[in-house]
Amino acid sequence: MPSCSRSGLVSVKVGDNAAAAPLVLSLLGKDTVILSMQNGVDTAAQLSELTGCEVLPSALYIAVDRVEPGHVVHRGGHHIMLGSGKGSRLAAAALNRAAPLKAEISQDIPSVLWEKLTVNCVYNALSAITLMPYAAFGETDGAGAVIQMVLEECRVVAQACGVTLPADMTQRLHQIIQHMPTQKSSAAQDVMKGRATEIEFINGYIVRKAGEYGIAVPVNFTLLVIIRMIEKRLAQEKLV
Amino acid sequence: MPSCSRSGLVSVKVGDNAAAAPLVLSLLGKDTVILSMQNGVDTAAQLSELTGCEVLPSALYIAVDRVEPGHVVHRGGHHIMLGSGKGSRLAAAALNRAAPLKAEISQDIPSVLWEKLTVNCVYNALSAITLMPYAAFGETDGAGAVIQMVLEECRVVAQACGVTLPADMTQRLHQIIQHMPTQKSSAAQDVMKGRATEIEFINGYIVRKAGEYGIAVPVNFTLLVIIRMIEKRLAQEKLV
Repeated sequence: MPSCSRSGLVSVKVGDNAAAAPLVLSLLGKDTVILSMQNGVDTAAQLSELTGCEVLPSALYIAVDRVEPGHVVHRGGHHIMLGSGKGSRLAAAALNRAAPLKAEISQDIPSVLWEKLTVNCVYNALSAITLMPYAAFGETDGAGAVIQMVLEECRVVAQACGVTLPADMTQRLHQIIQHMPTQKSSAAQDVMKGRATEIEFINGYIVRKAGEYGIAVPVNFTLLVIIRMIEKRLAQEKLV
Repeated sequence: MPSCSRSGLVSVKVGDNAAAAPLVLSLLGKDTVILSMQNGVDTAAQLSELTGCEVLPSALYIAVDRVEPGHVVHRGGHHIMLGSGKGSRLAAAALNRAAPLKAEISQDIPSVLWEKLTVNCVYNALSAITLMPYAAFGETDGAGAVIQMVLEECRVVAQACGVTLPADMTQRLHQIIQHMPTQKSSAAQDVMKGRATEIEFINGYIVRKAGEYGIAVPVNFTLLVIIRMIEKRLAQEKLV
């Protein structure tokens, strides 16, 4: 974002927030609206704590792939949900001017963020581990039952955090397979490129919150640990 | 095994038993002892049903790697436990003449086979999914807890099947990490070479038995489904 701009979009990987915070602060004008365009349900709060400023949360329904530095390919989707708050109308209007984006303000952004977190807990992790596109989830014996187990664990943790996931969440998850059969998750792309994933803020967040509330989440925990091991292998391969 | 030999060792992958049975039958002499040197707790029974002959079960504690057809590298171990039954003394004596093997007859082969199955449920699956050697299990945050979950699920299913796993099974599992830190499981080697694994007879067996007894085994089930998806990818890559 240019110096003293009226709105700033933060879209670094969640794990880079602490490193990015000084840069964000150096670019703030008097009334700059900071928008977190990141995965996770507490990312905006985290960024707010790091910068001391109000940060608007958002959920993006846009599939892109960074094929090389400076070259991003748009795979589909153009929808953005913003939290309501100071500057959200200004930010939504600015985003809507940037066609073909479609930004809307949600009066219940926690539910929106939890629903997206649950989608990520299912597809990011399993796609990153198996390196298979979403179609494979519809074609593999037992995959539907694993998806359901991840979902039910997320549902219980969300409820403990005060958010009720939609009753038709199973259908919503299966629609993703139908709408994007050839897509691999951003986490799968991270693994294929030897980069660290955001797993600690996806399934890792569920595991931490479950721990706080004494809830068992064996499947999310297993997926988290498997990706930690895969990241360890990627880091070792990079050193060779 | 040569025609009309006194003992025959069957060591094909469990999934190939049906295909191997006619060959086994064609090689049998009047008193040939058939020994199943395979993973799984019901493999000998399965082979017995396919051939109509008595088959001795056994558990091998020998790490080998088939680097190419006809070239097998011995990585460690020389211990074989045989079930007791008709011909087991003969078979043990024959194996012990083939130094440096050390064959013993167990009076409780079901417990021996279940303990080995449990080891395989933990390490075969996780090593095949992550392609990491056993040392990584000791070094990754949370891996010990995942190992424990797989173990506890196996323990409950074993108990339902009438077998009590050793009380110090956790220690036995951790000793494997210390004794073979650089080893990758046979299933990991299968995945790296694009071959199908024996997962349906390892974690898959636990899942089927758990289903019969109405026991929840979410972690074994998740590992099974993940490897099914990885095998699907390997099969697709072979076609390309």
